[in-house]
Amino acid sequence: MPESCGCDWFFPLPGSLLDEWIREDVPYTDFTTGVLGIAWRAGRARLVTRERIVACGLREAAAVYERLGARVRLLAGEGCWAEPGQALLEAEGPAGVLHAGWRLAQTLAAVGSGVATYTRRMVERARAASPGVVVAVARKAPPGLRSLYYRCVLCGGATLHRMGLSETVLVFRNHLVLLGGGLREALDRLRGARGVVGERLVAVEAETMEEALLAAESGVVDEVQLDHVEPGELARLVRELKRRNPRIRVAVGGGIGLENVAEYAATGVDVVVTSAPYWARPADLTTRMEPL
Amino acid sequence: MPESCGCDWFFPLPGSLLDEWIREDVPYTDFTTGVLGIAWRAGRARLVTRERIVACGLREAAAVYERLGARVRLLAGEGCWAEPGQALLEAEGPAGVLHAGWRLAQTLAAVGSGVATYTRRMVERARAASPGVVVAVARKAPPGLRSLYYRCVLCGGATLHRMGLSETVLVFRNHLVLLGGGLREALDRLRGARGVVGERLVAVEAETMEEALLAAESGVVDEVQLDHVEPGELARLVRELKRRNPRIRVAVGGGIGLENVAEYAATGVDVVVTSAPYWARPADLTTRMEPL
Amino acid sequence: MPESCGCDWFFPLPGSLLDEWIREDVPYTDFTTGVLGIAWRAGRARLVTRERIVACGLREAAAVYERLGARVRLLAGEGCWAEPGQALLEAEGPAGVLHAGWRLAQTLAAVGSGVATYTRRMVERARAASPGVVVAVARKAPPGLRSLYYRCVLCGGATLHRMGLSETVLVFRNHLVLLGGGLREALDRLRGARGVVGERLVAVEAETMEEALLAAESGVVDEVQLDHVEPGELARLVRELKRRNPRIRVAVGGGIGLENVAEYAATGVDVVVTSAPYWARPADLTTRMEPL
Amino acid sequence: MPESCGCDWFFPLPGSLLDEWIREDVPYTDFTTGVLGIAWRAGRARLVTRERIVACGLREAAAVYERLGARVRLLAGEGCWAEPGQALLEAEGPAGVLHAGWRLAQTLAAVGSGVATYTRRMVERARAASPGVVVAVARKAPPGLRSLYYRCVLCGGATLHRMGLSETVLVFRNHLVLLGGGLREALDRLRGARGVVGERLVAVEAETMEEALLAAESGVVDEVQLDHVEPGELARLVRELKRRNPRIRVAVGGGIGLENVAEYAATGVDVVVTSAPYWARPADLTTRMEPL
Amino acid sequence: MPESCGCDWFFPLPGSLLDEWIREDVPYTDFTTGVLGIAWRAGRARLVTRERIVACGLREAAAVYERLGARVRLLAGEGCWAEPGQALLEAEGPAGVLHAGWRLAQTLAAVGSGVATYTRRMVERARAASPGVVVAVARKAPPGLRSLYYRCVLCGGATLHRMGLSETVLVFRNHLVLLGGGLREALDRLRGARGVVGERLVAVEAETMEEALLAAESGVVDEVQLDHVEPGELARLVRELKRRNPRIRVAVGGGIGLENVAEYAATGVDVVVTSAPYWARPADLTTRMEPL
Amino acid sequence: MPESCGCDWFFPLPGSLLDEWIREDVPYTDFTTGVLGIAWRAGRARLVTRERIVACGLREAAAVYERLGARVRLLAGEGCWAEPGQALLEAEGPAGVLHAGWRLAQTLAAVGSGVATYTRRMVERARAASPGVVVAVARKAPPGLRSLYYRCVLCGGATLHRMGLSETVLVFRNHLVLLGGGLREALDRLRGARGVVGERLVAVEAETMEEALLAAESGVVDEVQLDHVEPGELARLVRELKRRNPRIRVAVGGGIGLENVAEYAATGVDVVVTSAPYWARPADLTTRMEPL
Repeated sequence: MPESCGCDWFFPLPGSLLDEWIREDVPYTDFTTGVLGIAWRAGRARLVTRERIVACGLREAAAVYERLGARVRLLAGEGCWAEPGQALLEAEGPAGVLHAGWRLAQTLAAVGSGVATYTRRMVERARAASPGVVVAVARKAPPGLRSLYYRCVLCGGATLHRMGLSETVLVFRNHLVLLGGGLREALDRLRGARGVVGERLVAVEAETMEEALLAAESGVVDEVQLDHVEPGELARLVRELKRRNPRIRVAVGGGIGLENVAEYAATGVDVVVTSAPYWARPADLTTRMEPL
Repeated sequence: MPESCGCDWFFPLPGSLLDEWIREDVPYTDFTTGVLGIAWRAGRARLVTRERIVACGLREAAAVYERLGARVRLLAGEGCWAEPGQALLEAEGPAGVLHAGWRLAQTLAAVGSGVATYTRRMVERARAASPGVVVAVARKAPPGLRSLYYRCVLCGGATLHRMGLSETVLVFRNHLVLLGGGLREALDRLRGARGVVGERLVAVEAETMEEALLAAESGVVDEVQLDHVEPGELARLVRELKRRNPRIRVAVGGGIGLENVAEYAATGVDVVVTSAPYWARPADLTTRMEPL
Repeated sequence: MPESCGCDWFFPLPGSLLDEWIREDVPYTDFTTGVLGIAWRAGRARLVTRERIVACGLREAAAVYERLGARVRLLAGEGCWAEPGQALLEAEGPAGVLHAGWRLAQTLAAVGSGVATYTRRMVERARAASPGVVVAVARKAPPGLRSLYYRCVLCGGATLHRMGLSETVLVFRNHLVLLGGGLREALDRLRGARGVVGERLVAVEAETMEEALLAAESGVVDEVQLDHVEPGELARLVRELKRRNPRIRVAVGGGIGLENVAEYAATGVDVVVTSAPYWARPADLTTRMEPL
Repeated sequence: MPESCGCDWFFPLPGSLLDEWIREDVPYTDFTTGVLGIAWRAGRARLVTRERIVACGLREAAAVYERLGARVRLLAGEGCWAEPGQALLEAEGPAGVLHAGWRLAQTLAAVGSGVATYTRRMVERARAASPGVVVAVARKAPPGLRSLYYRCVLCGGATLHRMGLSETVLVFRNHLVLLGGGLREALDRLRGARGVVGERLVAVEAETMEEALLAAESGVVDEVQLDHVEPGELARLVRELKRRNPRIRVAVGGGIGLENVAEYAATGVDVVVTSAPYWARPADLTTRMEPL
Repeated sequence: MPESCGCDWFFPLPGSLLDEWIREDVPYTDFTTGVLGIAWRAGRARLVTRERIVACGLREAAAVYERLGARVRLLAGEGCWAEPGQALLEAEGPAGVLHAGWRLAQTLAAVGSGVATYTRRMVERARAASPGVVVAVARKAPPGLRSLYYRCVLCGGATLHRMGLSETVLVFRNHLVLLGGGLREALDRLRGARGVVGERLVAVEAETMEEALLAAESGVVDEVQLDHVEPGELARLVRELKRRNPRIRVAVGGGIGLENVAEYAATGVDVVVTSAPYWARPADLTTRMEPL
Repeated sequence: MPESCGCDWFFPLPGSLLDEWIREDVPYTDFTTGVLGIAWRAGRARLVTRERIVACGLREAAAVYERLGARVRLLAGEGCWAEPGQALLEAEGPAGVLHAGWRLAQTLAAVGSGVATYTRRMVERARAASPGVVVAVARKAPPGLRSLYYRCVLCGGATLHRMGLSETVLVFRNHLVLLGGGLREALDRLRGARGVVGERLVAVEAETMEEALLAAESGVVDEVQLDHVEPGELARLVRELKRRNPRIRVAVGGGIGLENVAEYAATGVDVVVTSAPYWARPADLTTRMEPL
């Protein structure tokens, strides 16, 4: 197995999910290999990058080929930089298998590497501006493929804000609206429900300085989350919040990407929340086959 | 039901797929609504666009809410232009349901509308340059969500090159390599297999003018597909191929997007193949709740 | 691997489908092997044909045994003729596994071989009457098992008319009825929708000579499909349609089976559509076990 | 709800199975309704029989339409005779839904009615020859669709020999072979395992008169099952077995169908085992649509 | 493979069920191994019992580890007594795999061994009181895990009353209530439906001595089942029923567990029905890892 | 809808899971209702408790009936005390539906109410001893049914320690063993990985006072978890840890149940971890039907 470059994450990949993905693309067969009469000829498919990338999605690509019956060898380490022309993995098996799998395998690796590469660049810029800042990616990935997106975010060096709705307590505006009574009411409820909150992080989205201070000083909130604030304004808010409660964690989200992450990180905020990595351009990969 | 603006496509949406998507995001519950004690309070969630879009993905968004137990009303026609501030759909139900569904529903509509909007613009530019040209989107969508991507391509006004590997005969370079004997051998095999090819389209990817002519004049090929050819060169190739076989269809793919589709369409090619719509930025949507 | 006799088709077989099939027959266990106390004794099961067949369904049978944990060896080539008494495959494993799998494995091979054998005979008769005729099997297979039926149709030497509803444009009477305006209206719509039709085959079911001619001369139809026409009448129709449009393809369906396919093929029609192979008697197979 | 004619069986039909069936036929959409622009036009589809049948499979057909979003009304009672031209069910909904569902719904009803009709005829002949005889259908149905086949066997008036391998103890030749020691050893084991056999039926397949008597007199066997015995020989065997043990039940299987069931029933055997109903020709049904 | 101690039962374990179980516990990853950077380090996990148990559930535990990609060796025989400190199985693989699987694997073995141990003790007490008595466990196991519960009941030495609702005819009070007409009406219906009952066991739950006698003398009932009767009363009932019909089988259920099974068995009843084993305390197991 | 008594939790319940549960118990049909000919008679089933319970699992029970086609009315509030004889829910529908669903529905409610009742009692005792203590239930529930167990723990008034492995960082002994280098090495790694840990809780299981102090003073650990410590010893440890780091949270687990939770809570520990509620005896419920 190639070196991992810090991409040390085991995510189980359910067989039934692989089956779904395969069936979308190959409801029955690759008609072309069948008509040409070459379905059982042994071949090798090699996945190659045409640009500089942080490789990711290779395990998912490998799992697709293996599920179809091919043998796979990883040729690049996930989380590592791969150079133009470098082979990432190769699969050996009957032509029918290779042709049924290559497009799907390549798309998984292209999407995953696109995410990891973008994330890596974003983390580098953020850390250069503020070494201790957390870059946390939001829960907005296209559904059905989250474990790939999440894994490649981690392999890119960022973290996930949270992985699902059951993990933490995060009070949004839309919670307050249905609760009635505003943030104060919410804080009272959280205070009364500590036995059920248990060990979970409690975060509150604040729209105004007043709300942010109320949360920060409430004694029940671990993190205040701000949305769509300008960096200058943000720096002031962070300073004031930390002054009132030095242990409060401050997060900011809304329109943050590679182009402005350094500016946000430099404000002294603890956590920068982004969903930009999900929309990164997929890596430019290609698959080349040869007979065995 | 709002007007459809030409988006007249019924795609079944399996309940088990909806369950998968929901479980990714809500493995157990929205912990926050539970802790606040508002899970059973009745509310309404309204999905609103913040920019001008061709609306799409609304049916999938609605299906998520309905699967969770909410009642849904579509407020905008899929395939129609929606203006900033316009509501697209609203869902009514218990707060626990709305908070379990809104993020997923919004992501589906944002991705779908992003695809439809980009596609629409691309088709408009292509048709302005060449009214009869077919814009055909390739099979490269991220897996697990293809029916959304495909439907929104159609609602954007383009078509799919093909929807899966079992539909047509499309001979790629990688088929020739495993076949051995080159294109000539492939054409011989196709000629011998006409009883199995049946009524399917036969297309061949050609790398050189020589291959393109061989295919066009073979009598067994309906369409010649060219990859990564410059528009000027392409125009010459199309003219020559049509001169030799006026019934041959010519397709071109490779690096074609909104910025250059007009140039390609203007070459006289029959089909422009692209995967750019899948990587369009998702539409900027938001969800606003209110108590009932 | 035994020779393939032209049955060169790789169809992925989802593990979850195998699980479903197994669970239908063995919700918990083969109670008998358990009570006899032999579940872990090693044995071999051999699948043998008692009549002359074109073998098919062996891969599905093998997959069942393998899913349960047995090792399998194919002993006959799919698509090849097998003679009475010939062994088709053998599986080795614990008695509990063999007894859990044999009935299901045998049924898959019996159904598949029944389909392939019938198809082969039908294709031979059709080709004898008209060497270039396409025998195309319709989409009427019992649900849940289509990939087996389709694969064995191909291994029998016929093709599929189409594999699913998303592949082609095929205008049935029931489309015209809901459209209103009749065939003329449909042809106008197809003409207007060429950008969305894209590269797909356009076929139209015609009920009268008038409709058939209208379609054939419309410029938007690739194939006219006729239903329940007598061979004599059909020959006249084919001649007339080809006279008006030499490139039009003519298909015929309705009540065509082994007994009359030659007559239909002899009319000069391009495509004979049938669903008879699905209802062929399953091959007479048996399974014999022995201890290891 | 129409009268049931004795077809009083509720079989749950998992939604995920319906989804599978639908996806096989409509991986994405009925392209034709989409291209014609009529997917959202309201229509009605009526399923009609063209021959005299015992109706069955209507509930499964209805479930398909409902899963897709149509409203359904049953027009004929399952288990009842329906006459040529009689409507069996009707579904109302958008054209896109009706065209996505009709073929699958019709196939389910055609297969189910074919099974029920054949079964009914077979039971009538058997009972005419021997009023108390049990016609028991074996576990050989094509996989993936067993609940339909089983339900329609019951609605035809026969029973299932057993529904799965976990229900009863049924010692086959292949069990004896892997056990070693022959039938005597098996009977000893069953005697020793009575606490685990519990309340289950114990049946033994016998190949010779000697084995049959050994089983019948063993005190642990409820039923002796004979395979491929001629009716004359069978009558003698039944008499002798009942003389030795008046409480023993005798079953016979192997090559029994509509044409010879009366002869077998007349031998005095208790149970006639058959799989012929599964291979009955599907009923000749058609679907007619109209606008609403 | 270790000795089986009479636990000779092969139950297929669907891969999709394993995937479900894994996903419940590990929706994405064991975050801890990832953060520590040890996911790909090779290790061994050993499952050890801390108390004396009848081992069971080891195959399910092994299947979890294997599904995740570990290699597994069983170290104790299922159905055999294992002593405190004894290792039951060991799994080798990357730390990420071991940490993703150990809790689930251990829970399966702990639940299964708890069931088998309780069952074994109950069977021993019952047989000491009445050697031929059948201890039959009811269909009340928590859903989703039945094949484990059933297998471990069998490995404990008891049997299942029935495994599902489709196996036998068992007339409960709630059937009579919806039928109307009481037990007499039910017996008439069963008499008229013998062709459909076929070879199935017919049992009737009786609430009074009168009902019990009616059933026992009806000629259509194989077994009378009594509920919540005191042992003394039960002994009298059994004697009287057997006097009237020596072939009738008598079963008793309701509140029977380890503490009173001997008393019930001693009444001469044929079958003691219980669900107590499902609620046995899980075995006290632990998992210890080491680097490789 | 009845009052909720604080059980305000919406958990999505996937239809495919319901299908699985139903199929386990009813692979085909309730044979008894079918044979009696009453499958389509309308009836009502009422679920009643025979003892004092905190009701839970009613939503899951209702979902089963609804999935099968019955209409359901909840008659008791989940999380509320219900008295002996009180009806919890009623379902109306055909007898075939009611008989297919009642056992499964009743088992879900019996298990859920058993869990909620035990949890409620445990929380009451713990809070009486220490009002602010968190009772946190571990991840040891039998697989396949976790959402029920989790929901009823919450409705009982406790919380979940964590819901899955992906939520928090919790360093167990088995992590240290595979890491090598002991706790100190682990703390160094966590310190270096803060960007990936992000906002997650970091907990460490400590075996000795030395380890506990090392963790508490490390600056990277939020919670120290102790295992199998006697209450007296625990009180001392808690005091010492809080003296060194007043913000450290201390949790304790291992052998804690209803009988000793008060003693543990009284030590001043922040969190008591238990899995006892999962093994609580199921509530004593019954189902009574009547015709409609």
